Amino acid sequence: MIGASPSRRPSRPRSVVLLSGGMDSATCLAEAASVGPVFALTVGYGQRHARELDAARALARHFRVGRHVVLEIPLAPIARSALTDPRMPIPSRLKAGRIPATYVPARNTVLLSVALAAAESWGADRIYLGVNAVDYSGYPDCRPEFLRAFQRVANLATKAAVEKGRRVRIRAPLLRRSKVDIVRRGERLGVPWGLTWSCYRGGLRPCGRCDACRLRARGFRGAGVPDPLLA
Amino acid sequence: MIGASPSRRPSRPRSVVLLSGGMDSATCLAEAASVGPVFALTVGYGQRHARELDAARALARHFRVGRHVVLEIPLAPIARSALTDPRMPIPSRLKAGRIPATYVPARNTVLLSVALAAAESWGADRIYLGVNAVDYSGYPDCRPEFLRAFQRVANLATKAAVEKGRRVRIRAPLLRRSKVDIVRRGERLGVPWGLTWSCYRGGLRPCGRCDACRLRARGFRGAGVPDPLLA
Repeated sequence: MIGASPSRRPSRPRSVVLLSGGMDSATCLAEAASVGPVFALTVGYGQRHARELDAARALARHFRVGRHVVLEIPLAPIARSALTDPRMPIPSRLKAGRIPATYVPARNTVLLSVALAAAESWGADRIYLGVNAVDYSGYPDCRPEFLRAFQRVANLATKAAVEKGRRVRIRAPLLRRSKVDIVRRGERLGVPWGLTWSCYRGGLRPCGRCDACRLRARGFRGAGVPDPLLA
Repeated sequence: MIGASPSRRPSRPRSVVLLSGGMDSATCLAEAASVGPVFALTVGYGQRHARELDAARALARHFRVGRHVVLEIPLAPIARSALTDPRMPIPSRLKAGRIPATYVPARNTVLLSVALAAAESWGADRIYLGVNAVDYSGYPDCRPEFLRAFQRVANLATKAAVEKGRRVRIRAPLLRRSKVDIVRRGERLGVPWGLTWSCYRGGLRPCGRCDACRLRARGFRGAGVPDPLLA
């Protein structure tokens, strides 16, 4: 072909990946990196498990992403949550039908909105968000109807969409997957689990008792894969 | 009435006001403050006109808001705009049908998302956003359809809405008003125009040539009100 080198394929999708450093966003990153260039976006919102930010950096390096930005949005002064307020305890057991104290008000709305800004500026076709509506904690902004509503906002909000018809698709490939499925999928995509971090408490080793640790353990156990963080 | 003191009326709406320091958000603040308690939220997104932030602080003091938070969200590394990148010139004239370089990618989506977080945490009933679809610059996220789409996100995103049916209403009372109407409305509500700031260039005095200065001048001229910033 004239004018096109083999290494430059304009049809490869460009993705903004919201990368927390947990196993779900790591699996999304692996998927996005397998299809095209990636802009990884990590948002620190004053959460206690800053250990996650180190995991995000290590994962971005591992997958050689084109760009990794860590954006600090200090939600603590405006949004009360056990993840941002050191005076609130991290719950160890979930109560059925109740959204736990680790819920961060409007968190995924904030994450998707900054991802949308990055996607428009970088000319991305996709935003990957590692939410999950199966083995999850009942957060309202992890539901399919929430994602559909945000997709509509994305279609209307940007200059790229309005002037050039260039829409950004919100992708949540893990939405209907169990944690077991996610471990299996991540294994196929080569996710380095030892670089990921899930525990809400963020010590040197996972606490094993919080919601995030329990869900992680269930996934590895069900998939028959050893968790390198517990080795 | 038993158990209710005259000073405590639970039916007074609590509002989060997105306060930029410009004349539109100042008018929204005046309206919200006239009906109930206010949480003013000012977002600095690395814009060049930091002069606006001082204006926001002065307005919050003037209207004695219950709480004023200035949140820094450094959009410059992810979102290209003449308002955040000092290398891009501020355009002096608008081109019909074209969205200008002062557009900040996904700006109102980001602003509304953090306001939603604040509203849920603070138990607010309303979010005020001073957008305007008449004398405006053609920004896609100032259109009624964008606001309707975000309202749907707000209805689905929060724990307060899902568990308690407590929805936050997005209010954009200036949406269909001209700048002349806004000056008249602000006059009735007692907006101290001398504390507001509009100019995109953010010098000691308004430049008089940028888009924001021109729209402001048109409003004051049409309403027959002198602009104290030009006195």
